[in-house]
Amino acid sequence: MPASKFATGLQCKVCGKLYPKSPINFCTDDFGPLEVVYDYAAIRPHVSRAIIESRPRNMWRYRELLPIDGAPTVGPQVGGTPLIRADRLAEAIGVDRLWIKNDAVNFPTLSFKDRVVSVALSKAREFGFKTVGCASTGNLANSVAANAAQAGLEAYVFVPSDLEKAKILGTSVFGAKVVGVTGTYDEVNRLCTQVAFKYNWGFVNINLRPFYAEGSKSMGFEIAEDLGWRFPKHVVCPMAGGSLIGKIHKSFEELYKVGLVAEAPQTKMYGAQAAGCNPITDCVKANRDRHKPVRKPNTICKSLAIGDPADGYFSAQLIKNSGGWAEDVTDDEIVENMLLLARTEGVFAETAGGVTLAVTRKLIEQGRIPRNEEIVICVTGNGLKTQDCVAEAVDRPALIKPALDAFDAIYAGTREPALV
Amino acid sequence: MPASKFATGLQCKVCGKLYPKSPINFCTDDFGPLEVVYDYAAIRPHVSRAIIESRPRNMWRYRELLPIDGAPTVGPQVGGTPLIRADRLAEAIGVDRLWIKNDAVNFPTLSFKDRVVSVALSKAREFGFKTVGCASTGNLANSVAANAAQAGLEAYVFVPSDLEKAKILGTSVFGAKVVGVTGTYDEVNRLCTQVAFKYNWGFVNINLRPFYAEGSKSMGFEIAEDLGWRFPKHVVCPMAGGSLIGKIHKSFEELYKVGLVAEAPQTKMYGAQAAGCNPITDCVKANRDRHKPVRKPNTICKSLAIGDPADGYFSAQLIKNSGGWAEDVTDDEIVENMLLLARTEGVFAETAGGVTLAVTRKLIEQGRIPRNEEIVICVTGNGLKTQDCVAEAVDRPALIKPALDAFDAIYAGTREPALV
Repeated sequence: MPASKFATGLQCKVCGKLYPKSPINFCTDDFGPLEVVYDYAAIRPHVSRAIIESRPRNMWRYRELLPIDGAPTVGPQVGGTPLIRADRLAEAIGVDRLWIKNDAVNFPTLSFKDRVVSVALSKAREFGFKTVGCASTGNLANSVAANAAQAGLEAYVFVPSDLEKAKILGTSVFGAKVVGVTGTYDEVNRLCTQVAFKYNWGFVNINLRPFYAEGSKSMGFEIAEDLGWRFPKHVVCPMAGGSLIGKIHKSFEELYKVGLVAEAPQTKMYGAQAAGCNPITDCVKANRDRHKPVRKPNTICKSLAIGDPADGYFSAQLIKNSGGWAEDVTDDEIVENMLLLARTEGVFAETAGGVTLAVTRKLIEQGRIPRNEEIVICVTGNGLKTQDCVAEAVDRPALIKPALDAFDAIYAGTREPALV
Repeated sequence: MPASKFATGLQCKVCGKLYPKSPINFCTDDFGPLEVVYDYAAIRPHVSRAIIESRPRNMWRYRELLPIDGAPTVGPQVGGTPLIRADRLAEAIGVDRLWIKNDAVNFPTLSFKDRVVSVALSKAREFGFKTVGCASTGNLANSVAANAAQAGLEAYVFVPSDLEKAKILGTSVFGAKVVGVTGTYDEVNRLCTQVAFKYNWGFVNINLRPFYAEGSKSMGFEIAEDLGWRFPKHVVCPMAGGSLIGKIHKSFEELYKVGLVAEAPQTKMYGAQAAGCNPITDCVKANRDRHKPVRKPNTICKSLAIGDPADGYFSAQLIKNSGGWAEDVTDDEIVENMLLLARTEGVFAETAGGVTLAVTRKLIEQGRIPRNEEIVICVTGNGLKTQDCVAEAVDRPALIKPALDAFDAIYAGTREPALV
């Protein structure tokens, strides 16, 4: 059976109404978000651990559980990032068994967004779009621009105009048309919705969103496979729009449904946000039915600064239903934990990585995550994109002449070095 | 037979004198550099394509041809980077078949240096060093710092004080002691030689250099394996100290020696440098016996700015003996080709990538590389580390209000946008 038969259509997450596979992202009845549905019974005989392990180590080894009809034409080598056994960090924060899923080294643009973009742009080509775009807090902009360049698609990328320089440059360098918008991410997103429908362009996180979001599942598939085809007890995940955390959980459920893992997942999912933009963690902690949008996000963690997250409701529900929890942390805690991660495990994550580690520690200290149970932390982006945030917090290098006695003196502490 | 028996010792590249495996890098008779020697006959029965392909996709799948005695304790997941079929770039530069070996996404610090450092620091631990260090033009600094952090080794990293900010920050963030030296790389290197021997520290590119350099072979092993266990006709490689290009060639010879590839390599090797620091390309082009050191390197490509390269002689010899050639390019050509690479293939390489592509084009235009033969370009580092070099060359984003009519106006060209 061709792959095109496995993903059977789209379904409203609110009312369950079915739609054919097409570039739409909400239910015309109740405006609920649409999600790809699969025929798991049809998939089951086509996948086995041996089949998957025999394929190249990238996200497409799980192709039966991704929603494109043909072979991937964009991002054929995305994914396959390391799951790191983080013993030094575990010791530092006082837990027994800790793993880092490191998408800071994802190919090509160093964030988990390459996973969702490779699905979205492969799908965009299947739908016949020639121009693609996105609303982005930065990582998505980089990924859409790079992958569109490689695919020969024209790209329009909309970002808040106060975005980090590295994320703007890391977009325009690929030749994408970058549009800075004087407003919050939510305002950028609303504008993009209008642009997508007026110009009939394929916006990866708007009209292609149901397909796009499925790409995140590959992060979960890889975690489970790398643990030896089993699920961890606790997963801590950063939240911006709130999609990733749900898709990681969905990936575990799917591995169980198609028989790749024998036991149903019991994983507790934990969500991490910055205190300066915490609509989902607030929703969980205050036990609200729906999140309260944050009108003016104020945090150094711009990649998570979505005040009115598209999947806010569903991620909060998932966290509670899984037995997990959510927390948020200050900018100081973010920087402190970026450094801790770098200094214990050699992983230079962007601010969102600092958020996730800081929240993990907070949840451990609160007793919500037991110290003796296995934890996976999701690192989703690279620290080179948010350098200014840590530049002040690290020591400036000593400055010496090229002479051994100059080094001897600063090493022995007999001379105070000048600084670079 | 244990792996420790495969690498049998060190040998002077000039006089052939043998030394035991120890932290030394030059022959006491003639100061020639030392190189690791292997018992290929002993290795041969232990390796096969099937054995290697069954292992995790990282550099250690070629462990029999790497010079550590036990299991790797540093960088166990380094390597396995993509070899990209670059059809859009091939079309742009008018060649038939082009590949990019993309170490800009190498793990953990986004350059090929993670390959050499994982070998050097694993070896440093076997030798019992607790403190490690390096002289670096940037990428090596990042890699030593990150990998030492993960391994719990203390690290001293010496760099020219005018290095790119991103490379300094991307070192100090890992907690390494960074020492900026007011001088060229060659002066930094001489100082480090003194420090290494005075303090008995393991400097990866000084007293550990014979082991360190072997790590580069893994880039060549991966190229050949990903081409289907065969060798390309032409490889273009950036040159700083001149080690990488020789090790890639050595890797091809070794694959032939141990029977993993049936035909001996006929690959022509091409070296790339910046015109502002071109001791090796000048040596080749002027047909000198030895390179003339460049006293004052002057190029935006700081990662290649080694005026007196340790392997200058050997790399020039190799290039000529292989039937290849060498060229150097201006800073403007570097930037132009960084952009071309990004815009055709979605690969954001550092300045050295711009050097390598620009040189490739020059050699094609000179007729030295035929347009109808297979070419592999080695990209060794990430563009996020050298952002300032391209910042001026890319368009500034348009700046608009979050309103559809504002976008319509700039899209239609009826209003000149403000710029971010």
